[in-house]
Amino acid sequence: MDDSPAWNVMVSTCPSRTSLARIANKWTAMIVIALSDGRLRFGEIRRAVDGISGKVLADTLRDLERDGIVSRTAYDQMPPRVEYDLTPLGQTLREPLTALGTWAETHIADVEAARDAYDDRGSGDAF
Amino acid sequence: MDDSPAWNVMVSTCPSRTSLARIANKWTAMIVIALSDGRLRFGEIRRAVDGISGKVLADTLRDLERDGIVSRTAYDQMPPRVEYDLTPLGQTLREPLTALGTWAETHIADVEAARDAYDDRGSGDAF
Repeated sequence: MDDSPAWNVMVSTCPSRTSLARIANKWTAMIVIALSDGRLRFGEIRRAVDGISGKVLADTLRDLERDGIVSRTAYDQMPPRVEYDLTPLGQTLREPLTALGTWAETHIADVEAARDAYDDRGSGDAF
Repeated sequence: MDDSPAWNVMVSTCPSRTSLARIANKWTAMIVIALSDGRLRFGEIRRAVDGISGKVLADTLRDLERDGIVSRTAYDQMPPRVEYDLTPLGQTLREPLTALGTWAETHIADVEAARDAYDDRGSGDAF
């Protein structure tokens, strides 16, 4: 493999674009935040990521497992038990994705003020 | 306003969830990265964010302007000239969103290896 591959997410055909699409996603961010405190079962993740549907959670976990970000461990017992955890690669996403969640929480007051100003301006200028 | 509002993106009804959805998005990430070097015209952003459609770019820029992340300046001249720039609030997203782009570029080899292993395992185990 080339020592200095010119990966560039800004190029639509670059493979790194597919990885950006996976991680720059609200569900990925919340699942990684939920798993930051340690391994969880499916139902525990679903409760932590309030509002996610079972299908979206299952699909996203499968995509994250395929990308090497989440590991899935099935225990051979009754009743069946399956746990999800961040892989070492997934651990490296904790900081940048937690930063996005913190940004959203820290700046929502500014964002809502901007939305109000935008909506007021729109109704004033356009009509 | 409360000094310590309990904003929490993990709660589906928390307003901060809407802000997370906006910023944890591949197009937002690439537009903010493109504008990190300074103001650009619409066509310049479209060329920088390779593969984005005109409609998605227009919609995303409008959403980012409404959220106070991007500013839009229309110059009263012929031909008309419109420029987009990061607001001071948008500048605070440069670091976390650039980090996601860099993560995708840095780790794509690991991600592709994980995908190959997952796909091989699937065809071996399941069939």
